[in-house]
Amino acid sequence: MDVKDLFDDISKYENKEVELEGWVRNNRNQSNFGFIDFNDGTYFKNLQLVYDKDLKDFDKISKIRVGSALRVRGTIIKSVGSNQSHEMKVSSVEVLGDSSEDYPIQPKRHTREFLREVAYLRPRTNLFNAVFRVRSVAAQAIHEYFQSHNYVYFHSPIITGADCEGSGQMFKVTTLDMNNLPKDKDGKVDFKEDLFGKQAYITGSGQLHGETFAMAYKKIYTFGPTMRTENSNTKTHANEFWMIEPEVAFCDLEGIMNIEEEMLKFVIKYVLDKCPLEMEFFDNFVEKGIIDKLNKVVNSKFVRITHHDAITLLKEAKVDFEFKPEYGEDIAKEHEKYITEHFNGPVFITDWPKDIKAFYMKLNPDNETVAAVDLEVPGSGELMGGSQREDDYDKLIKRMKEMNIPLAGLTWYTNLRRFGGCYHSGFGLGFERLIMYLTGVENIRDVIPYPRTPNNCDY
Amino acid sequence: MDVKDLFDDISKYENKEVELEGWVRNNRNQSNFGFIDFNDGTYFKNLQLVYDKDLKDFDKISKIRVGSALRVRGTIIKSVGSNQSHEMKVSSVEVLGDSSEDYPIQPKRHTREFLREVAYLRPRTNLFNAVFRVRSVAAQAIHEYFQSHNYVYFHSPIITGADCEGSGQMFKVTTLDMNNLPKDKDGKVDFKEDLFGKQAYITGSGQLHGETFAMAYKKIYTFGPTMRTENSNTKTHANEFWMIEPEVAFCDLEGIMNIEEEMLKFVIKYVLDKCPLEMEFFDNFVEKGIIDKLNKVVNSKFVRITHHDAITLLKEAKVDFEFKPEYGEDIAKEHEKYITEHFNGPVFITDWPKDIKAFYMKLNPDNETVAAVDLEVPGSGELMGGSQREDDYDKLIKRMKEMNIPLAGLTWYTNLRRFGGCYHSGFGLGFERLIMYLTGVENIRDVIPYPRTPNNCDY
Repeated sequence: MDVKDLFDDISKYENKEVELEGWVRNNRNQSNFGFIDFNDGTYFKNLQLVYDKDLKDFDKISKIRVGSALRVRGTIIKSVGSNQSHEMKVSSVEVLGDSSEDYPIQPKRHTREFLREVAYLRPRTNLFNAVFRVRSVAAQAIHEYFQSHNYVYFHSPIITGADCEGSGQMFKVTTLDMNNLPKDKDGKVDFKEDLFGKQAYITGSGQLHGETFAMAYKKIYTFGPTMRTENSNTKTHANEFWMIEPEVAFCDLEGIMNIEEEMLKFVIKYVLDKCPLEMEFFDNFVEKGIIDKLNKVVNSKFVRITHHDAITLLKEAKVDFEFKPEYGEDIAKEHEKYITEHFNGPVFITDWPKDIKAFYMKLNPDNETVAAVDLEVPGSGELMGGSQREDDYDKLIKRMKEMNIPLAGLTWYTNLRRFGGCYHSGFGLGFERLIMYLTGVENIRDVIPYPRTPNNCDY
Repeated sequence: MDVKDLFDDISKYENKEVELEGWVRNNRNQSNFGFIDFNDGTYFKNLQLVYDKDLKDFDKISKIRVGSALRVRGTIIKSVGSNQSHEMKVSSVEVLGDSSEDYPIQPKRHTREFLREVAYLRPRTNLFNAVFRVRSVAAQAIHEYFQSHNYVYFHSPIITGADCEGSGQMFKVTTLDMNNLPKDKDGKVDFKEDLFGKQAYITGSGQLHGETFAMAYKKIYTFGPTMRTENSNTKTHANEFWMIEPEVAFCDLEGIMNIEEEMLKFVIKYVLDKCPLEMEFFDNFVEKGIIDKLNKVVNSKFVRITHHDAITLLKEAKVDFEFKPEYGEDIAKEHEKYITEHFNGPVFITDWPKDIKAFYMKLNPDNETVAAVDLEVPGSGELMGGSQREDDYDKLIKRMKEMNIPLAGLTWYTNLRRFGGCYHSGFGLGFERLIMYLTGVENIRDVIPYPRTPNNCDY
């Protein structure tokens, strides 16, 4: 039986004997009785086990170490002294797995930096236990949102033979012995001997492939790991992260903003509903007021403002920005912060200068901006980035040439515009950014089970 | 509006005008009227559009090519002639995207080999449309099964610095320029200059990492892409595929078999329930009787037999096997086939010879076999492979030494046995094998959107 099932229907078990298996979070005792904080991982709160001198192995139980795995039997009773409604009066305890003296997760405060070093044990702490359960529940919320709206879950390939993103920015993947590479007559690596018979890469996005399936199913989404080579040591960058990339045919920029807004609200509500204890913990110990913040988002209408108007707003602001806001240029972190605080909620910024955006974004009639949209949220900055896609074959080819995108490997992509193309849009959502936003945890390393960042690939 | 929503409640729309956007699967016409088979990808069946001479642009509509994207308005009426209950009497048609003369997906039979060559268009055919929708629905079934049973969805890392699986069998991943590798003083590649500061690989399994989270949450599952370097050109091997790896603490071999059986039945029922049209299509055109086969599985109790007894059964069989079955040895494809046909349903084969299984499987008291289990299903062979894990620290270390598994990089794994270890079990399910089993499609290349196999990494 899971502790979650017990707590979900606790009054049913009152005065009944149950058997549970789980781990010791703490063990405190006096001469005549003792308490074990017991947790099996399925439920955020500990169950308090009460054992007393009458038990024949009282002394043995008193010495059970933190971290040990137990099988316990006992009666569920109403709690008198503790801050919980119920506890277990123990009748027997069996140690299934002892915990060594040097067990690092003792019942005291550990720094997040220390816990990163024992990443394989940190989900046993309250903070990380809550974070990674919210991560799981938020993932399910995303699947439920899209599946219930007729989307097809599309598994985009990870390995690709097309270096369309610029191979310098992609991981190379090989089965060759890197200390003994086969060479061709020009002294270059002979990739014919590699598994795929050519140089292979890891894609940084499933979007282009996603568009091919959107042109068959109307609505698709990806949800999978993404790897990027950015050599960037910030709180918000990791070299391996999970991403959601929906793509919708017969959908324009307004339409995709509506979907982003509806989806985000759905996910927030779902997590607040399914993880009340975890959210309460974040509210108390990580980000004060986070539950209010999220509830407010659910009930708000997101602001929509053009990049041009956002720059005007920034220029008129009585703030001494480090980077001066300029029409036609990108928006810095400090600007994002000002804008979301100004509107006190999520803000869609639309119609960005074409020169700072990707080749596949639809050119607006002004020939200067593209139908792109970033969603900025208070505290976390950019959460989603999307656009309407260029569906005019000739304009797309022209833009790809201007931006030196190799056309040859992307015929399948450009052909979508020749074979029943239509107006369509999509967006990308960095899953870890979402988890940071939902939990208040500020470092991406603390919302991924095993983070990969420059010079860091442990476990 | 999605065509699926229309069909889900078609009588509500009778004699109402609706607007739809989608694609032309076929366009047939005579001098006074014509029919368009219309599909927006959200629903397996086409909607028949009827247009007649009264429309002012009748001639233009008559010439609309297969594959074109349309916006249509019209009235939903009861169908008289067609094999569908309803059709649309068209009042206006707008071509959103023309389809070129050379559009490859014409309304005729295409071979699967040809369709692999235009993989980006094949989801527009009935077969692949059905396959990839079932893939999406089966993925959701898996998530719903585990989430509703208190599991945490765990994202195992793809990139790893530990070559515990034997680096020869793993993809290497690098940001270095392979034509210009930095070398150290011994002439070896200087991986200090690589992004992670050391050689990095792609893992072939998330299991070991999964165990770390099972020791915190009791029940976890992974579901993500997996890459393996096998140079194997068979119908059942791909170098990139998706895998589900559940791991359960306080669970023995019997327990994990119960979970495998319950989960498989849940997924089958879910797909039969959500994809009746697709399953009917497979039954008619891919594998006759597949719906009966799957229904029978749902209502059966899976056979459980030891490897020893399976070999005895094979030895007693009046069959001239190419490979002679032997105690202590592996079971060949022809043997799997015999066994599943003999029992006429799924069969768990347990307690395998230790020498043909992995280091982490629990040694049985006989010191010869391990608590491993493979699930064999008729037609597809091995669908899942699992085991109880070795939870005895000393036995695990001994076995790792015997099998030359480098201990140094796996302290975090072996330590799980020192810090509250417990009996636990898990299994792996190859997602594509499952889809092949559910659809009757025999080649793994036809159940992955963009297959990667030796010498094949297109798109």
